Amino acid sequence: MSTAFVTTRRVEFSDTDAAGIVHFVAFFRMMEQAEHDLLRSVGLSVVMHDLAGTVSWPRVSAKCEFTAAARFEDLLEIEVRIARLGKRSITYAHRFLRDGKELATGEITAVCCRIKDGKPPKSIDIPAAMVKKLKPFVPSH
Amino acid sequence: MSTAFVTTRRVEFSDTDAAGIVHFVAFFRMMEQAEHDLLRSVGLSVVMHDLAGTVSWPRVSAKCEFTAAARFEDLLEIEVRIARLGKRSITYAHRFLRDGKELATGEITAVCCRIKDGKPPKSIDIPAAMVKKLKPFVPSH
Amino acid sequence: MSTAFVTTRRVEFSDTDAAGIVHFVAFFRMMEQAEHDLLRSVGLSVVMHDLAGTVSWPRVSAKCEFTAAARFEDLLEIEVRIARLGKRSITYAHRFLRDGKELATGEITAVCCRIKDGKPPKSIDIPAAMVKKLKPFVPSH
Amino acid sequence: MSTAFVTTRRVEFSDTDAAGIVHFVAFFRMMEQAEHDLLRSVGLSVVMHDLAGTVSWPRVSAKCEFTAAARFEDLLEIEVRIARLGKRSITYAHRFLRDGKELATGEITAVCCRIKDGKPPKSIDIPAAMVKKLKPFVPSH
Repeated sequence: MSTAFVTTRRVEFSDTDAAGIVHFVAFFRMMEQAEHDLLRSVGLSVVMHDLAGTVSWPRVSAKCEFTAAARFEDLLEIEVRIARLGKRSITYAHRFLRDGKELATGEITAVCCRIKDGKPPKSIDIPAAMVKKLKPFVPSH
Repeated sequence: MSTAFVTTRRVEFSDTDAAGIVHFVAFFRMMEQAEHDLLRSVGLSVVMHDLAGTVSWPRVSAKCEFTAAARFEDLLEIEVRIARLGKRSITYAHRFLRDGKELATGEITAVCCRIKDGKPPKSIDIPAAMVKKLKPFVPSH
Repeated sequence: MSTAFVTTRRVEFSDTDAAGIVHFVAFFRMMEQAEHDLLRSVGLSVVMHDLAGTVSWPRVSAKCEFTAAARFEDLLEIEVRIARLGKRSITYAHRFLRDGKELATGEITAVCCRIKDGKPPKSIDIPAAMVKKLKPFVPSH
Repeated sequence: MSTAFVTTRRVEFSDTDAAGIVHFVAFFRMMEQAEHDLLRSVGLSVVMHDLAGTVSWPRVSAKCEFTAAARFEDLLEIEVRIARLGKRSITYAHRFLRDGKELATGEITAVCCRIKDGKPPKSIDIPAAMVKKLKPFVPSH
């Protein structure tokens, strides 16, 4: 059983830099976009509103290791798994491929928080309904 | 009497693209940054809060004409004038120079709006205190 | 007969700003992406290599008028027409819609240039094979 | 003796997102900008040309841990140290502060490479003249 969510991104010209390849920060943008695609695929969003206000997911860490360059117009396949589904946080693990060859791997950890205007985000337990929808993406599931 | 506000920006590597020059959208980012530098120089901000909530400046139009390319690490001088100080809107005119040579000119028109969560921005008259601080940047002043 | 090329973009979280809506420079990025989608649809690219080197399309002007805000996760439809197919330049006209409602319109003019390392781009006539492929997108065609 | 290079960045509006805070990828952009500021301060650049062509520094890994949010117009202090000065690679360590309070820490590892058009970057030894200029930023120096 495959537990990876798979999405794709075409490298845009604005993702490249004067070295002629994709600028490294574009990979972080695509990692986040892939996470949001995963959430959207099960009816969730990284910003959700309930009666008590807004629930969102500030990032506490992000990393990426690059093994090969990507170029303008490359079609990248991005695999996303949930490496850890914690009580209040999620670690997403990402893998970038082009024609089956791995280009980069990364991880983002985000914390479930209640957001109120002008106040620091406050961590809360991930709502049970959300946990249920995300479990299929946990490899050990 | 000079009515231009002048600020500078160093071209960052992430502003460049695979053609080896500054990507055109970076000029729009710098135009907005220069506008915000101008506002900050007289104690204003593009997002201000009063008792009634938030006042901000959605853009209704933006344009730029490019006459020469900029490159990584170039130090750009950006002149900003207020081409039109309307009742509810401001048109900023920008000029980019490198070593005294003009690279690009642009304009952004922004409308003074009251912002409320989840509702479309609603235009309001520019507060008198703000008009007073901005008049020195109007060339016909 | 429809002469518009139509493509779509999902608004990403990184396209938004602290006003809660899509930042205006994201529209310029999407305008360029839509132009590149159009070129790709007929087997062309904004950066092409021939025996004599590289042919690319520096922008000489870009503008956009904004009539309504776009928000995170909106699915935008982008129409692209070729407003003017000149001897050495192309003016693309863009229209953004969400659920059939127009949000913004823009234009980008790009010049066909031969690019050599360290030299300013030099304008050339648009190759005949390219003109032929682009004519269907000219409304007056 | 302080071995940190210190630079500053003002948070721009385009760095923020719809959660009202600085988007996490902006930290990676600022980490790279701070590295380039360090290089420029000793007469070096991340892209240098010699008789044999171009020498640049593709990134092989990047990471950042976020402990507090930054907001529009915050003035951030960025400390950069060289955590490891290898034979062919450099690991830069970054620390973001606002009013003396730490907001984030990160690391970028870049490899010294000869760049040739259309070929994968090829790692080379860091030139001796460059090593000499960078040693003062190595804490154990």
